Order: sequence, then structure tokens, then C-alpha cells
Amino acid sequence: MARHENVRVDMARLWSTLMRSAEIGATPRGGLRRLALSEEDGQMRRQFGAWCEAAGCTLHVDAIGNMMALRPGTDPDGKAVLVGSHLDTQIKGGRFDGVLGVLAGLELIRTLNDHDIQTRLPIAVVNWTNEEGARFEPPMIGSAVFTGEKSVDFACSRTDRDGITLGAALDAIGFRGGDTIGPAQCDSLFELHIEQGPRLDAEKIQVGIVTGAFAVRGFIVEVTGETGHVGPTPMPARRNALVGAAHVTLAVEDIGWSRHETGGKSTTMRLKAEPNLLGILPDRVEMTCDLRHAREDVVAQMMDAFVQRIPDLEARSRCRIAIRESWSYGGMQFDAGCIGLVRAAVDRLGASHTDLLTEAGHDAMHVARHLPTAMIFTPCEDGLSHNEAENVTLADIEPGVNVLLQAVLARAL
Amino acid sequence: MARHENVRVDMARLWSTLMRSAEIGATPRGGLRRLALSEEDGQMRRQFGAWCEAAGCTLHVDAIGNMMALRPGTDPDGKAVLVGSHLDTQIKGGRFDGVLGVLAGLELIRTLNDHDIQTRLPIAVVNWTNEEGARFEPPMIGSAVFTGEKSVDFACSRTDRDGITLGAALDAIGFRGGDTIGPAQCDSLFELHIEQGPRLDAEKIQVGIVTGAFAVRGFIVEVTGETGHVGPTPMPARRNALVGAAHVTLAVEDIGWSRHETGGKSTTMRLKAEPNLLGILPDRVEMTCDLRHAREDVVAQMMDAFVQRIPDLEARSRCRIAIRESWSYGGMQFDAGCIGLVRAAVDRLGASHTDLLTEAGHDAMHVARHLPTAMIFTPCEDGLSHNEAENVTLADIEPGVNVLLQAVLARAL
Repeated sequence: MARHENVRVDMARLWSTLMRSAEIGATPRGGLRRLALSEEDGQMRRQFGAWCEAAGCTLHVDAIGNMMALRPGTDPDGKAVLVGSHLDTQIKGGRFDGVLGVLAGLELIRTLNDHDIQTRLPIAVVNWTNEEGARFEPPMIGSAVFTGEKSVDFACSRTDRDGITLGAALDAIGFRGGDTIGPAQCDSLFELHIEQGPRLDAEKIQVGIVTGAFAVRGFIVEVTGETGHVGPTPMPARRNALVGAAHVTLAVEDIGWSRHETGGKSTTMRLKAEPNLLGILPDRVEMTCDLRHAREDVVAQMMDAFVQRIPDLEARSRCRIAIRESWSYGGMQFDAGCIGLVRAAVDRLGASHTDLLTEAGHDAMHVARHLPTAMIFTPCEDGLSHNEAENVTLADIEPGVNVLLQAVLARAL
Repeated sequence: MARHENVRVDMARLWSTLMRSAEIGATPRGGLRRLALSEEDGQMRRQFGAWCEAAGCTLHVDAIGNMMALRPGTDPDGKAVLVGSHLDTQIKGGRFDGVLGVLAGLELIRTLNDHDIQTRLPIAVVNWTNEEGARFEPPMIGSAVFTGEKSVDFACSRTDRDGITLGAALDAIGFRGGDTIGPAQCDSLFELHIEQGPRLDAEKIQVGIVTGAFAVRGFIVEVTGETGHVGPTPMPARRNALVGAAHVTLAVEDIGWSRHETGGKSTTMRLKAEPNLLGILPDRVEMTCDLRHAREDVVAQMMDAFVQRIPDLEARSRCRIAIRESWSYGGMQFDAGCIGLVRAAVDRLGASHTDLLTEAGHDAMHVARHLPTAMIFTPCEDGLSHNEAENVTLADIEPGVNVLLQAVLARAL
């Protein structure tokens, strides 16, 4: 064991791998646009597959395009320790969100090879399909299919803005696989990810030990007004759906501020008005909102607070305001055993650390309902992500990457 | 003269013409979708042209597709009295907005034919291209080209949402004409239109004598925030452009309410957010707003009031808020001579009437800067327009249509 505890990844090699990834779908402003199952994603997937095969792994691809690069263990009955994240990005995304977790997994395999270390359990580097949801909704659909939460048929019938189905997009880049992979074949999951929040960076903490996930409520609000001519319609006769939407937006905003001292957040992130034309009062707005808090009971109170404001918002805008669809996720604790391995690795490495919750959605949150799961966060510059300016330094990620290596090794040995 | 003063249009025939028009682009909910230069607009234009030729008119079409059906006068040097409006509609438009003015013009010609009345000046029934602006922007582009305010090249290069140019759309339906028609060939314009506001209907007034046009300020506001992840980004670190847009919307709304007792209006009518995706704080909103008041000085004050609010709106939302583009129109008086002819016709017919201003934009407002111009309003049900439920009865429009006939006759005789 002692020998293995001194093993460290080759950060220069990992960095060069990350920088090669940063070329595939690069944007002029230094970010990445590598939408799920796009031509760029196909190119990155082929590059990733080639790297994995060069590292001696066997590549498996399932019906939703999830990629698993398997390094065998010595136990013929051993289930795989999964390590990975996603290679797709937002439309104007960064170079590290998701990518770091997958390529650190690859680097982990290379490191084991360098040191000729055999593990009892197989280790599989995973790239989940369509984590971001920037092209196909819902996000995190690859891991949802892996766990059986969503069916392959449901996932493959999702369409992008051009009406292309996810299934057709898989075929277009040659990534509709035939392998069956599910929780039954796997032991656990370790996902390394940039924090996507400012805390580690601001407080100069090297590693975030993610003990669980924020509780999230998402909902679609439909505001119904009445069209009419913007010229002659008197103010008291109007039912402008954009005015209703403005009241909803500020009410949602208020709810986040009312809980922000305990980490609560609220967002209106998407809004579509109809008919959205010159000269016409808009009669319909559909908007997507989101409430988050560490505590499930508090997020439930935040949701109630919004619902109770609706009659007032209707009175102010003379529009009808209804919640048309809603969803929730998160609010779980990760596995104590896996967290324990992460904590032990952090201690051995002497890295500064803190426990925290993930406030973003991750594939690990789907998987955690089926397999022992842990997440490790690294700092990212100013906490910025889902943004082309998203950035980390090699020094930012080195402790987290080695914690990942050591924790996975401890699980698989 | 006395003989002509007793002439009345055949309302049943006009109504059947209107109902034939209501079939071309009919929507399931009883409205019209006849976007400028669409296949439906082409069909309506051919029907209108056929009706005009059957009534003995010569059809002229200019380079922007404006149609003028000319009934010659007895004076070989006489310039044409224009009478008309537009046959295009909003996406979910009504059956009478614009259409009434054109088809009443056609009915006027038919009536003169029935009574074998010759006029000294020619009379031309006009259908202006793309009044609504629902497909190509800006609206009222046909009359702007007629007056020379916009060039044919500018107009023909406008594109719709599918990237089709106005010029290509003209070609597709065969309405890029070769005739040169401008103010120099014309004497005056009379435009009959539904009120598009509730006053005449509510007060049971038969005819609105339009003495001028509301002053309008339109502007595009650009709200700039910053993207980021909706999960981890703390409330105080956010610059959500949709929150900025909500503050702008309510500030614009307040300005209309502050002047509504003297007829002021304010609208946010169009809003587009970017990237407008799940999971991402929006960093850019573009919104189109509009302020209207009868008095030019008051609308200038309303605009100033908005501009002065901007720093406060920026502080509340932490976004940058800038007016990127602005325009103004209206604010003019129509021609006293033409109004006088309308007033005399109203008096002779004994119709109840009121003076008012047009609060909507009309082609007559472009033309009024170049030719003596008047507008006549008829009531419309509940003042509703730019809406599929837009409605008038035959009794609503009969007085206005006969006033149009008598005023045009008085001008042309």
C-alpha cells in the first residue's frame, strides 16, 4: 500500500491533454462550444477513445452514447469503479467544466500504467452523454439512462432546436453503441469537477469534499395576457404578458435574496414571449425558473413563497400566471464510504480542504441513488463557469486530481 | 352636385368583398394570417387586382409592390386622389385592419361606376406593401418607399425570420412591379381604418375624424449582464440580464401609467434573451419598447423620464442598460382641407362623430408629410385589433364608408 500512496499523476501530461481538448470546439474568446453529439463532440469523443485505447483500455459505448473505457481488474467478478464526468459543453462554455473529470480519469489510468499497478476491481473512465442539456433537454440524460430513470427511447426522441433527434445525432457521429452498461455492472462512482462557485478560490482552499447536493426546484411559469395594438389600447385595458413576466422575475429574485445568507439562490434563466413582434401587446410568456438551497425543507418553503405571491402578481399585471411544469432534484447525501476514502486521501496529501455541497446538477446525483458515489471539487477562477472565461491553473487542480487518484485506488485495490 | 351627395355605397356588396378577403389566410379562430408578400398575400393581391380590373381600373405596381388601381379622371393633367390602406395582416391578425380601407376604396370605384359618375381627378385605390411589419421590418415600408423616405434597395434587402429578402418575396408572388409612382403623380390620400381603440365603440360614435397622429418614440434597450452557472453563483455576484429586463419593463410600464389620464401609453412589446438556456444566467437581453402621447412635448418628457431612470435600474440589477437604437414618428396634424371635406361629409350624412388622433402607425402618416392627407376611423368591437377576435358589424362601418365616398368625391369632382 505504502508504495501506492506515493503515486502522483503527471500534471504536465494531464495539462497537455486538457489543452488538446480545448482546441476541439474552441471559441474566439477562449472558451468551448462543444454541444452534445455535435461534430465537435464527435471529434472529441474519437480523440478520447483513441487516448483510452492507447492506455490499454477497452472502449464500451451504450445505446445513449455513454462511453466507458475499461481497465480490467484482477478479480474476474469485480465490478467497475467509475471515474469521470462529461466532455460536452454549454454553447458558450469553458474548457474545464466536465472535461477535467473525464481527462483526470484518463490520466489516472495512464498513471497506474506508468507504475504498473494492478487493481482488484476494474476501473472505467466514463464520459456521460449530454450532461449540459444545452442541445437536448433534459440535461444529465446519459446518466439518467444509465440508472434506468429515463428510457433509451425517451432519450433518443429528444430534439434540438433544429428538430434533430438525439438518436439521429448519435448516428450522425457514430456513437449509438450496442453495449449494455448499468449500475449492476458497477461498484461506485468518483466524479472530479471544478467547483463552479467562488468559495474554494476565494478562500484559497485546495480541495472541496462534496458531501451531498443542494436541493433544486425548477419550474416553468406560463403568463397569459391578451394581444392588442400597442398604440390605442389604453393602459387600464392592457394585459401585457411581458409585464406579468417582469413581476414574476422580480418575485423569484426576491425569494433568492431572502435566503441568500444561508446560500439560497433563485433564477429566472429562460424567457420566451409571443408573438414578440413590433406593434402587438404580447399575450403569452413562458419562463423557466429555479430555486436552490442546501436544505430540502427550505427550498420547499421558497417554492411555497412563490406560489403564494402568484395572486398578487396576477393582480398587478392583470395576467394569468400558472406553474405549468415543475421538477426537483438533489437534496441527497453522498456515500459515507466513498467520502471517507476522499477524506483519507486529502489528509494523506496534506491538502487544505472543506466539506461542501454541490449547488450545480451533476451526473453523480443520478448515479448516487444507485451506487456509492462521491464528488471532489477543485477551485476555479472567481467561481466562474458556464462562461467562456472559465479558468483554472495547473496548481488549482493538482491536489484534487491526486485526491481522485488516491481515493479511486483505495476503492479499487 | 346635389345628385352626387345622395350617392351611397352598396354595403352588402362591400361586405361580401370583405368576407371573401376573410377567407384568404383565415385562421381557425376567425382571424387572418396574411403576412406581407406571403402566398396568401399573393392570392389576395391577385383577387384585389382582378376586382379592380373588373371595375375598369388600370393596375399599377411599383418596385416595392405597392398596388394602385387607377380610375381615370376627365382632366388629362389631373393628379390622382389616393384612397386605400393595406391588405397584409399581423401573424394573428383580424379581418378588417387595413383591409377595410382598401376594399372600401374598391367599393367606392364600383359605386361611381354604378352611378356613371365621372370625376375631374383620377382616383386610385392603393394597397401599400408590408404595412404591419409582422414579416419584414420596419412596418409601413411601402409608403416609406412611395414618399422616398426609404430607398427601394433598402426595402428589398429587408429579411424575414427565414432570411428571405423582401425583394425575393416580391418575386416569389410576382409583385415586383415596374411602375414609378410617387407623390408627384398624386393629389391627396384618404385612408379609412378601424379605430383599433375602444373610444368610438364605447361611446357609440359612428365616425372618427382623425385630425392628426400621436407622437411615438420607439427604442431598443440592450441589457448586458454576465453568464454563469445558476446553481453555485451567489446572489450578490449575479448580473442576470433578465432581472435587468424586468426592471426596465416595469419602469417603462410606470411611465405610461403616469400619463395615462391624458392618453399616454407605454409598452414593452418584444424581448429576446441570450443564451436563454437551462442552467445559465442570461447575459444579454434585447427588448423593444414604445411610448406614445398626443403631445410631442409630453412624449419627449416620457422618454427623458425613462433615460433618467436608467442608472437606478442598473444599480438594482447590476446590469448595464443602454438604448441601442431609437426612432420617432407621428406627432403631425393632417391636412385642414382634406379634414374639412371629411367634416362636411359627416355633417351632410348626419353621422355622430368626434375628432381624434390616431394612436397607431398608418401609411397615411408617411404620406401626410408629402401630400394633403386625411384619415377616417370606424368603430371596432371593444377596440380590439392585432388580434384574431377583431370585429366590426356592417352597421359599424356604413357611416365611415359613405363619409369616405363623399369626401373623396368632393376632392375629385
